[in-house]
Amino acid sequence: MGSFLGTLIGLASRIAGDSGFLSDKLNDFAINRLVKVSRNRPHPWSTRMPYVSWAGLTDRTYSARLLPAKAAGVQPDSADVASLFLAKEGGQMDCEKSTALFAAFAQYLTDGFIRTKLANDPPFGDGKKDRKRTTSNHEIDQSPLYGRTERQTDVLRLKSSKAGEKGRLKSQMIDGEEYSPFLFNSDLSVKSEYCDPETGEPILDLPLGIDKQPKDSPIWATLFAAGGDRVNSTPQVAMMNTLFLREHNRLAGMLEKKNPTWDDDQVFETARNISIILLIKIVIEEYINHISQAPIRLRARPNVAWKAKWNRPNWITAEFSLLYRWHPLVPEQMMWGGKSLPGGALLLNNGPLLAGGLANAFADVSSNKATRLTLGNTASFLMFAEEKAILQARENQIAPYNDYREAMGMDRASSFADVVGPDRPELAAQLQALYGSVDRLEFYVGLFAEPTQKNGVLPDLLQAMVAMDAFSQALTNPLLSEHIWGDERIGRLTFTDEGLTEINRTKTLRDILERNSAGLGSQFVGMTRMDWQRK
Amino acid sequence: MGSFLGTLIGLASRIAGDSGFLSDKLNDFAINRLVKVSRNRPHPWSTRMPYVSWAGLTDRTYSARLLPAKAAGVQPDSADVASLFLAKEGGQMDCEKSTALFAAFAQYLTDGFIRTKLANDPPFGDGKKDRKRTTSNHEIDQSPLYGRTERQTDVLRLKSSKAGEKGRLKSQMIDGEEYSPFLFNSDLSVKSEYCDPETGEPILDLPLGIDKQPKDSPIWATLFAAGGDRVNSTPQVAMMNTLFLREHNRLAGMLEKKNPTWDDDQVFETARNISIILLIKIVIEEYINHISQAPIRLRARPNVAWKAKWNRPNWITAEFSLLYRWHPLVPEQMMWGGKSLPGGALLLNNGPLLAGGLANAFADVSSNKATRLTLGNTASFLMFAEEKAILQARENQIAPYNDYREAMGMDRASSFADVVGPDRPELAAQLQALYGSVDRLEFYVGLFAEPTQKNGVLPDLLQAMVAMDAFSQALTNPLLSEHIWGDERIGRLTFTDEGLTEINRTKTLRDILERNSAGLGSQFVGMTRMDWQRK
Repeated sequence: MGSFLGTLIGLASRIAGDSGFLSDKLNDFAINRLVKVSRNRPHPWSTRMPYVSWAGLTDRTYSARLLPAKAAGVQPDSADVASLFLAKEGGQMDCEKSTALFAAFAQYLTDGFIRTKLANDPPFGDGKKDRKRTTSNHEIDQSPLYGRTERQTDVLRLKSSKAGEKGRLKSQMIDGEEYSPFLFNSDLSVKSEYCDPETGEPILDLPLGIDKQPKDSPIWATLFAAGGDRVNSTPQVAMMNTLFLREHNRLAGMLEKKNPTWDDDQVFETARNISIILLIKIVIEEYINHISQAPIRLRARPNVAWKAKWNRPNWITAEFSLLYRWHPLVPEQMMWGGKSLPGGALLLNNGPLLAGGLANAFADVSSNKATRLTLGNTASFLMFAEEKAILQARENQIAPYNDYREAMGMDRASSFADVVGPDRPELAAQLQALYGSVDRLEFYVGLFAEPTQKNGVLPDLLQAMVAMDAFSQALTNPLLSEHIWGDERIGRLTFTDEGLTEINRTKTLRDILERNSAGLGSQFVGMTRMDWQRK
Repeated sequence: MGSFLGTLIGLASRIAGDSGFLSDKLNDFAINRLVKVSRNRPHPWSTRMPYVSWAGLTDRTYSARLLPAKAAGVQPDSADVASLFLAKEGGQMDCEKSTALFAAFAQYLTDGFIRTKLANDPPFGDGKKDRKRTTSNHEIDQSPLYGRTERQTDVLRLKSSKAGEKGRLKSQMIDGEEYSPFLFNSDLSVKSEYCDPETGEPILDLPLGIDKQPKDSPIWATLFAAGGDRVNSTPQVAMMNTLFLREHNRLAGMLEKKNPTWDDDQVFETARNISIILLIKIVIEEYINHISQAPIRLRARPNVAWKAKWNRPNWITAEFSLLYRWHPLVPEQMMWGGKSLPGGALLLNNGPLLAGGLANAFADVSSNKATRLTLGNTASFLMFAEEKAILQARENQIAPYNDYREAMGMDRASSFADVVGPDRPELAAQLQALYGSVDRLEFYVGLFAEPTQKNGVLPDLLQAMVAMDAFSQALTNPLLSEHIWGDERIGRLTFTDEGLTEINRTKTLRDILERNSAGLGSQFVGMTRMDWQRK
């Protein structure tokens, strides 16, 4: 948001207070401004075909695109470009604002709908990678917890009609704490309850990268049966999923007691309705407000979407699935349980979570600083992902960086110094050497070449694109429609009175954690560093 | 539309003329009024579950619903209710306004998206009928011509890279006229090109009811390989599909000549883009204007949808799929090629179409009067379908008639005389005897119990529900979005200049027929009877 207008809205907001008509209008105005900077959906193009076609407009196994495919000609070597991302020898720069909880939540959230099709993702098990395609449902549907498909949901559910078990997701108790069941047998086969009884093939998507793990590694025994193939990618992400697993089962218990005539399905579905809204509330009220450098606190008021021209079917774009690769946020070393562990040792290893329990995990992650989201700051163990992103952008013929600045209503950069800021002449020279002209600078590189914003955590173009898609995708969730959320009678049927109370009293991850863990005490849990100060 | 306001709009429209700003605004106002009478999408409920659930909000293999499921208690015997539909002994009453072309177009159009799941419809080949489910794509996508699924589209396409063959649908020439290829071999097996090479199973949906045809019937040899399982249901419907087949291939030829570098896919996709718009233009400019009793001619101006609150993802409702069963429109006997044929003999028999050719078929069908859409007017050979509809409504717990009047902003009927009008005391007494109270009258029966409107063809509630869904589904087609149709540059890329010219010069089926047939001459082709006069 323009800084002058931002200041104005901030001032008006302080006068208007946190609720009431004027506050609502300011909130809606701010959100509308963030979303309306570029073309709303439906997008004319997808990654399926380079021209407008019915197949392209309807086949949601491909990504939509904000800008059409654009041939780039000869581009610099992808390995050379990727090397721009590697953290400098002096070590990573810290993010001044964010903790590692911010990074963990960003990953857990986006793993649910940014889902590039990979080699073994069903239903495309054709052995080939296809980075034009997606397995996304294109909604915030908590698929990491509930699965992408109904068959996955079915095997994750307890499916019991017994009192005390209705509507629950399967879980296990370890040291008095609730977790998802483990996925693998001791012989490293997938437990049969998660496999097709006829073919023996797993119904759940297996943890990404598990095929490269040594068979004698202790990590296999720590991995959970979960809805998403990235839930086990680090204990930070598994911790998020564990939180929502416990909350779902807690809600199911609450609903079952109040509604003893309900069957397993109705308890399950109603708990899921509430849980999806809880996630969206945290997205907007904790996560987006953490990202925002504006002085106004935005609220999850779906009303703004009910008449909005941007209320159109969600469809994740190829650009969105690139710009959300926030690898530089992740530090080379993390403190867990008082020990500094190398980040690589946390990959596919839930050991640290199981050792300390959920409350300590959240506190540990919150005590780590995120590193700054910028070029020259990616941890060594994540470098493999940077070159892949560059190649994916090229395969999809993503238009250059400057075209996106223009599409988002920003000035085109006229020089590399314009992109990186005046105090990084060395980086500007490196980019100049690689690309020659700023108009040839690639989207993915340009995004992270910009400096992060004052009081913010993201660079300029990235922030604008995240805000646009975040609001227009989260607030158009069908559960938040005028006819469910906006209709008091139907809203009460959909979420129940008790569910609405839970929604109203939830603003942060800490709120959910407090009711689902023991031993948290006064430990800090949050996305914003305790020592952060507005400039 | 209220008659006073309707008259006012009519007057204003005569002053404003057929184009220009004022005319556009009147057009938009009229359409908005028709759509906004009831709740817009997304609907909170579907036929999947009786409560609001994520599964219900996202599983589009079930029908959406305008009103939630409502238990009805004991209902009259379905056969007794169905008998209300049978034409009286004195014969069917004619519709004063419509020809049989109107009925044929209504069927061809709606067969594309009103698709109750039947026993053998893939992907649910579980042997059970499931009238809660649907195989609809929920869009006007010309699936009768192009198929519901991409595999179907693929086997219907010629897929040739040769000049003169690019982008074409498969076809055959008979007596110098172009038709779809025949579906069956002489041994009544499906031609192998339409079957899965591995399993031998047909990829195309087979003509509905073909399994009940005698093996020695001559009709097998007349049935076309087409996208829809109802294309062959009568020669009237097959005639519609033949028209659009020829138009597609004509457009492909035109595009191929102007764009010699395009491949088969691009020619095909662009011809389909144009063809879908042609169909929607005819829906609104010929078909809806025929139905409308208002004095204003509505135009296909998608602009009205771009900011509308009713521009939400299409999802066919259980109610819509019931209210469009216009069996009483079909006469017991039809004139084809100078002979009067019993309607039953036309079922699954394209013989009359092949014998006379396309131009004569359109002229023949247009020379037949439709029969009136009301109770006591269904032809004997269609009676089997009426009881099925009643049972489908009951299985889906469709709320009573009066609830829908209320939902559509109309007064509830207070007596059966209120429903049927003052001049049909016998029918009112029959309904009274069956239902006791008007509040128990079933939706499907009440729809057709009302008299048709002055200057119209449909009863009151039915017309309101058709108009609401027709505009909100047709004008929200992604090809008509602000960013394709509304963007001159992208519109020209999507449809080409020549394609836009074809769209602009097309207002009626006759326009398309003239350029795709020989021998039409001055024969009448139209949906409105030549002898119809406004009252």
